[in-house]
Amino acid sequence: MSRPKQTFRLSLAYNSSYTDLALEVREQLVYGGQREIPGVAFREKRMGRLTISEVDIFSPEGAKAMGKPMGRYITIEAPGLKNRDRALVQEVSQQLTDQLVTLMNIPPTASVLVVGLGNWKATPDSLGPKVINRLLVTRHLHDYVPRELAGRLRAVSAMAPGVLGTTGMETKDIIEGICAKLNPDLVIAVDALAARSVDRIITTVQLSNAGIHPGSGVGNRRAGLNILTLGRPVIALGVPTVVSAITIALDSIDALTDYLQRQGHNYGFLEALSDQQKRQLIYEVLDPMGANLMVTPKEIDMYIEELAVILSGALNAALHPGISEEQISQYIM
Amino acid sequence: MSRPKQTFRLSLAYNSSYTDLALEVREQLVYGGQREIPGVAFREKRMGRLTISEVDIFSPEGAKAMGKPMGRYITIEAPGLKNRDRALVQEVSQQLTDQLVTLMNIPPTASVLVVGLGNWKATPDSLGPKVINRLLVTRHLHDYVPRELAGRLRAVSAMAPGVLGTTGMETKDIIEGICAKLNPDLVIAVDALAARSVDRIITTVQLSNAGIHPGSGVGNRRAGLNILTLGRPVIALGVPTVVSAITIALDSIDALTDYLQRQGHNYGFLEALSDQQKRQLIYEVLDPMGANLMVTPKEIDMYIEELAVILSGALNAALHPGISEEQISQYIM
Amino acid sequence: MSRPKQTFRLSLAYNSSYTDLALEVREQLVYGGQREIPGVAFREKRMGRLTISEVDIFSPEGAKAMGKPMGRYITIEAPGLKNRDRALVQEVSQQLTDQLVTLMNIPPTASVLVVGLGNWKATPDSLGPKVINRLLVTRHLHDYVPRELAGRLRAVSAMAPGVLGTTGMETKDIIEGICAKLNPDLVIAVDALAARSVDRIITTVQLSNAGIHPGSGVGNRRAGLNILTLGRPVIALGVPTVVSAITIALDSIDALTDYLQRQGHNYGFLEALSDQQKRQLIYEVLDPMGANLMVTPKEIDMYIEELAVILSGALNAALHPGISEEQISQYIM
Amino acid sequence: MSRPKQTFRLSLAYNSSYTDLALEVREQLVYGGQREIPGVAFREKRMGRLTISEVDIFSPEGAKAMGKPMGRYITIEAPGLKNRDRALVQEVSQQLTDQLVTLMNIPPTASVLVVGLGNWKATPDSLGPKVINRLLVTRHLHDYVPRELAGRLRAVSAMAPGVLGTTGMETKDIIEGICAKLNPDLVIAVDALAARSVDRIITTVQLSNAGIHPGSGVGNRRAGLNILTLGRPVIALGVPTVVSAITIALDSIDALTDYLQRQGHNYGFLEALSDQQKRQLIYEVLDPMGANLMVTPKEIDMYIEELAVILSGALNAALHPGISEEQISQYIM
Repeated sequence: MSRPKQTFRLSLAYNSSYTDLALEVREQLVYGGQREIPGVAFREKRMGRLTISEVDIFSPEGAKAMGKPMGRYITIEAPGLKNRDRALVQEVSQQLTDQLVTLMNIPPTASVLVVGLGNWKATPDSLGPKVINRLLVTRHLHDYVPRELAGRLRAVSAMAPGVLGTTGMETKDIIEGICAKLNPDLVIAVDALAARSVDRIITTVQLSNAGIHPGSGVGNRRAGLNILTLGRPVIALGVPTVVSAITIALDSIDALTDYLQRQGHNYGFLEALSDQQKRQLIYEVLDPMGANLMVTPKEIDMYIEELAVILSGALNAALHPGISEEQISQYIM
Repeated sequence: MSRPKQTFRLSLAYNSSYTDLALEVREQLVYGGQREIPGVAFREKRMGRLTISEVDIFSPEGAKAMGKPMGRYITIEAPGLKNRDRALVQEVSQQLTDQLVTLMNIPPTASVLVVGLGNWKATPDSLGPKVINRLLVTRHLHDYVPRELAGRLRAVSAMAPGVLGTTGMETKDIIEGICAKLNPDLVIAVDALAARSVDRIITTVQLSNAGIHPGSGVGNRRAGLNILTLGRPVIALGVPTVVSAITIALDSIDALTDYLQRQGHNYGFLEALSDQQKRQLIYEVLDPMGANLMVTPKEIDMYIEELAVILSGALNAALHPGISEEQISQYIM
Repeated sequence: MSRPKQTFRLSLAYNSSYTDLALEVREQLVYGGQREIPGVAFREKRMGRLTISEVDIFSPEGAKAMGKPMGRYITIEAPGLKNRDRALVQEVSQQLTDQLVTLMNIPPTASVLVVGLGNWKATPDSLGPKVINRLLVTRHLHDYVPRELAGRLRAVSAMAPGVLGTTGMETKDIIEGICAKLNPDLVIAVDALAARSVDRIITTVQLSNAGIHPGSGVGNRRAGLNILTLGRPVIALGVPTVVSAITIALDSIDALTDYLQRQGHNYGFLEALSDQQKRQLIYEVLDPMGANLMVTPKEIDMYIEELAVILSGALNAALHPGISEEQISQYIM
Repeated sequence: MSRPKQTFRLSLAYNSSYTDLALEVREQLVYGGQREIPGVAFREKRMGRLTISEVDIFSPEGAKAMGKPMGRYITIEAPGLKNRDRALVQEVSQQLTDQLVTLMNIPPTASVLVVGLGNWKATPDSLGPKVINRLLVTRHLHDYVPRELAGRLRAVSAMAPGVLGTTGMETKDIIEGICAKLNPDLVIAVDALAARSVDRIITTVQLSNAGIHPGSGVGNRRAGLNILTLGRPVIALGVPTVVSAITIALDSIDALTDYLQRQGHNYGFLEALSDQQKRQLIYEVLDPMGANLMVTPKEIDMYIEELAVILSGALNAALHPGISEEQISQYIM
């Protein structure tokens, strides 16, 4: 009988370097030698200090290769974010707002439910709930605002449903129940992600129209938040806040084997080092806590606060384009 | 055009001393001279340092007189709770567990959803969410625990749905959606209450099988959490954490008029002081913040933590009678 | 043997309407019929939506009449602050920065220790510690910043010493020990205040060069933070966040007696209602928690966050005039 | 010009596996082949599910070899703590209380200042401040408690001084200033530690009479909290909450080289893999965040709360042996 590790949602296997970023999955395949991934298109452009990339998974073959559902995955990379550069924060916010507007593709009257996934009691997992705290929620205001404002005021609702380990309920079931009752036109799910590379922590934002699967990138599509389960489009918005400790360990081993091979010390046995053997080595280093260990910056509490400001600001701007925050906030409270 | 004051849920009218406690509503009627309230039965007993009382509203006439839905309202009063007396905390916990078991009246296999009402970002309103944080949630564990344990393990789920001002959604709608999807046999709603008398703050626990109406004791029954709206029984559990500032002002005026009358200074005009005139006086003292002002102990942050421990402990004991917290907690995490 | 109520610092007597605002003390004396207060000068001017007033206590006679130490007390009143108006926040910030610069009156090289008084675990008392959290602290950076920046970078240090009930030590003793060791040129003490009038809660900022006496406005000067105890000038900066429940009760009684007198119902006994009798009445309404009850807006948690942003922003601007926050923040972390 | 990374205190070098535990330093030396460490004595005993060990550094030679000041380092290891076993928590608490009493070795009238080191805004570093929150502080109560209690009531004060990055002041300077003013007979410093081995995270408590050096185990003795700097004995009490990501990476590389050598693949080059080369490899894996990355359990927020309960409970019991928590708590508040 095994114990369910369900308070936290990352269930990281010992045999792979897990990532929630489609960009990194593609990189792994490409670095693995695969030039073209059938069913997957990729574009990248530099905009000042930002790099915007798009991974389009447009066929079931592509989805299988990538281990992610079909759809568009947009990544905004801004390595300078870790230096708390305000001008850069402005650029990221503007770019994120624009990408959200394009990806949502909804009329001004469409109603939106924003869902903050994650556990607000576990710092690196608390990004979703903290974004929810800062949203301009308007669904309940229609009867109170002046008529000329009401016409332009999108009905936005928001909630942080908690995680399986603290609610006893699948997040999908909670959101499905609420959608059935309140019928929003679109769902936006905000979540903290796991990356493969430490330099993407807190410097990368991923948007997607493919929905989200809390707790895993691969698993059963029926348990995720997407158009199939919720009956309406689901936009996912996330930022990596952790890397699995297993990833660090695997990468270190790979760095050594690469190094030895570069030095000409390859007598065949290094190539033959199987995944099973690597797993065993890492198990020795990380056991017994292994899969529950995460790598995160010491300053993660502060970074989470800053990211919550950036993401909520972009969401507010994208959801209420015709109205200033000032105008709305007079009717809130 | 008025602004909705919906971030916080107490909407206190200027013309009455609002209370969520059935015990206090009854007191007001009785002190008002009404010996017998038709449709309402009352019982009270002392148990050591506790006073246990029951208000039974058993007819529509009683419900109208009391301004509360029909049902049983049980109050445990323990004035010593404000002194942080551990032995007393034990007595209250045991009594609360017993009363919960009796009021729930469910078989061991019945599933329960516990709902923590209130705004966790507003200290005196955060009791519900803080109780949820400490609950032993088990609904998701059935497939993981040993068979002999599973048979005795009640499926308990829990959530803190937030408040209208921060979600844009009526709490009732959120819980209705979740109940329709997950079908618990019973709902327990935990909430911070408003009292009329300052000495009931943090010293009194009210349980009821009449459900709860977040934000008011009187309003529209269709907007509350009860068997009509949720399709299953709803137990309400709450503790007063605030008194309206308006109540303090009104009581002070009443204390003066009582005093003057006792002193023989009654020339008729004091009796003639209308509610309208009292309202006007209080408006002068409290305006412009009036209805948003609450009276609470300086130590409320600490009291809320202690109450969350007491209430969650009693709920855990009442919901999982056959199993120790130890046994369950090995499967949680 | 009485119990010390020292976790929280407001020890409010039953016989007076306590206020930390010099402006309100003066109002009480003036409304009490005193046209001129010897030893006290008063000036007031409107600046847009702000009212700036100065109370100068310039003689021991004035200090005795006011119950406050000699010095200048500046008040910025902005009733609109409770509506969360951003343009107004900008005006208050700018005005507060200007007043701080004038009141501090120090050369660019003078070092400053900012002290956040109050209990961060009690929401309305947590303003001081929350301001400290947002300060640009620079004392330790001198060896790391570029030479041209170092010349203009004031050495600012900061701390939240806690309260007597949680440390067991007088705040004055802690700060005195630190000053003796680290020798700052100026101390700034930030604190949450108690007002007499509810409409000054969160809408008024008081600055003073007279220092501060944590826990009371009157008491022993040797226990306060001031030039006598710390050996260097002390600027006090505070915002009222609570009114004593006793004040509300007293004001309500006064409102009724005023009303009755205005209605011609004065048969002498109302004037004769002594302070002792009023105290007794209030004791009936508020007992047994009386002196520990405070009146505060339901949204106080949110207001405290907003005030911490305003005060820390003004302090940062006043303390580091030649350098942008951007420039400093790159060296912090 | 380099930036000071001083908000957080662990400054981990790339070339070593850093640990705050004397036990682990000794292990590294012993596993490195050194049977006897001159100037260091070691004892270990099993007590039920606990392992108690003592490292005594009794000569300057031993201090140099260990990189730690002379003194006694006691370690209580309880691997089961990560399973939240309540009976085990009791055993650890009792053992910790006993060891504290022995190590403090003070008369009942000696006064104690407890210092909670670390940054309460950074979860894994917040253990010290959280312990302080739960201490029974009594120094200010002497005049209020009954005479017969006062004779047995030790004067305990407590404070969380913050960290250099948020105060601008060295912790040592703050505590030195306070000690000079208030003159406690003993200082106890509580801190979160870094371990080398992941299975010691949250399962090991270290006590020492050698004082503590916030931010490093080796550095300048004049900057630490010890009898030389504070002029009175300093007991250190800590629990590891993180491992450096660099340690994980180094250990993974070492695990691979060990494995290859065990497999007979040793052609000499593996032994020749210098520390410099390993550093370079790890720099590739972890750059650019490297030294700021920490490895910690996903559930660290919860573990910190539980550890704060254990440590504060043991401190309260050790500091107030003749008086129950009940008796004291009636006088607090």
